[in-house]
Amino acid sequence: MTAATGTSGAAASRPRRRLSVEQRREQLIAVALDMFARHAPEEVSIDDIAAAAGASRPLVYHYFPGKQALYEEAIRRAGEQLAALFEEPPQGPLSERLHRVMGRYLDFVDSHGPGFAALLRNASPAASPGTGAVIDQVRQAAERSVLSHLGLAEPSPRMRLAVRTWIGNAEITALAWLADQEQDRRLDRAELQLKLVQEFVVQLLVLQLDEPQLRQHLRGYLTLEQPAGPAGQLLHHLLALMADTELAGEVLRLASGHEI
Amino acid sequence: MTAATGTSGAAASRPRRRLSVEQRREQLIAVALDMFARHAPEEVSIDDIAAAAGASRPLVYHYFPGKQALYEEAIRRAGEQLAALFEEPPQGPLSERLHRVMGRYLDFVDSHGPGFAALLRNASPAASPGTGAVIDQVRQAAERSVLSHLGLAEPSPRMRLAVRTWIGNAEITALAWLADQEQDRRLDRAELQLKLVQEFVVQLLVLQLDEPQLRQHLRGYLTLEQPAGPAGQLLHHLLALMADTELAGEVLRLASGHEI
Repeated sequence: MTAATGTSGAAASRPRRRLSVEQRREQLIAVALDMFARHAPEEVSIDDIAAAAGASRPLVYHYFPGKQALYEEAIRRAGEQLAALFEEPPQGPLSERLHRVMGRYLDFVDSHGPGFAALLRNASPAASPGTGAVIDQVRQAAERSVLSHLGLAEPSPRMRLAVRTWIGNAEITALAWLADQEQDRRLDRAELQLKLVQEFVVQLLVLQLDEPQLRQHLRGYLTLEQPAGPAGQLLHHLLALMADTELAGEVLRLASGHEI
Repeated sequence: MTAATGTSGAAASRPRRRLSVEQRREQLIAVALDMFARHAPEEVSIDDIAAAAGASRPLVYHYFPGKQALYEEAIRRAGEQLAALFEEPPQGPLSERLHRVMGRYLDFVDSHGPGFAALLRNASPAASPGTGAVIDQVRQAAERSVLSHLGLAEPSPRMRLAVRTWIGNAEITALAWLADQEQDRRLDRAELQLKLVQEFVVQLLVLQLDEPQLRQHLRGYLTLEQPAGPAGQLLHHLLALMADTELAGEVLRLASGHEI
């Protein structure tokens, strides 16, 4: 990204720097990554990439057979960066760890908007099985990371599905946020970040009833949480429901009307 | 679907029926829909479709310029069927309406498995902007339907996003269920159907704290619910959390430790 920003613009009129083969290859990938992040793939040409890199068109073709190959390499790098965002030290309250991860995720989406949207929508003609595999790898890395924070010895299929749907939820939310930014920014970033974490916490609260292994861990998770943290705020809000006596009456009628 | 099942197999050796132009076109679409539902697009050829329809290859080409056109028409029809599944009379408990909708959705996924998976994964070479538009239309129809059941005069962006992520959640869950069926069916269909509805109910419970319009409706929704229904079971389970006194202690510490 920095390389691209640094070389674009005045690049064409500047004398070319002498780069090693490996440096040049990396520079071309960085420039391509930056351009594919800011534009849909069909809007980017090899000529654009060459110009932004201060390189000639034949030089780009010397390193990559074509735009598709450069796109796939850029996507692969973006996937590695995205997967790395999910790495978070296993310390402190669970909801705050996930809150930090979601903050980095939304930062990434913000800075790679059009490319992220094109990749996930897979609507671009440049989409290929190769880019689909990158998305899958990011999802798997995210899933492994979240599961590792839960610290379950052997997560059940139900547990894995819950994590997977939560990651999909984050993708859909990020896409909606991006689409909204193009209009008038009605969705608040901080609110989305918090809601995403709280939706996961709620899922855990519901899931633990069918998941003895999760239930054993639940008290441990809660003990680490702070009242002002994402989980504390959520529980405060959920219990506040019961402060509306008419609502509480309906809730109690439903909750105690049968034994399961 | 019935047309395809009826004509496949012995079709080639049977005398061809005289069909009108419109009947023949509809028959070819029905056969294509059935084949694309059961196989990934790249596994289906025009010859396969001709054979299953008891038609010649040139006859298929007389109606459709190629496989891509037939695929897109089949997808368009499948999209209409899928969108129609979300139509549900606005009577009775909300969670039971959504439970019926999810039942039809999982039925559809069960009978159109490989085609559904290929379409959503968009991994097939036959994927095109046209098929992407069909998916978008189904999602929009589903969103409109769910919002209409909530009966909100003017749903907020936050509310629409919640519905959209829930529909995405259903897609991810359906794909995971399909993938699991190919293995050893560890995810239970009835459980998934119930969980999907309950996740939506939980989202409403959390959302209403920021959504005054939704809060006004919440008691009305709950009044219609039955203790043994999806929402009643969920509330029973959530309150049961508090029966664990150590857990309840943590929940109360978090919930009452601050004022928001």
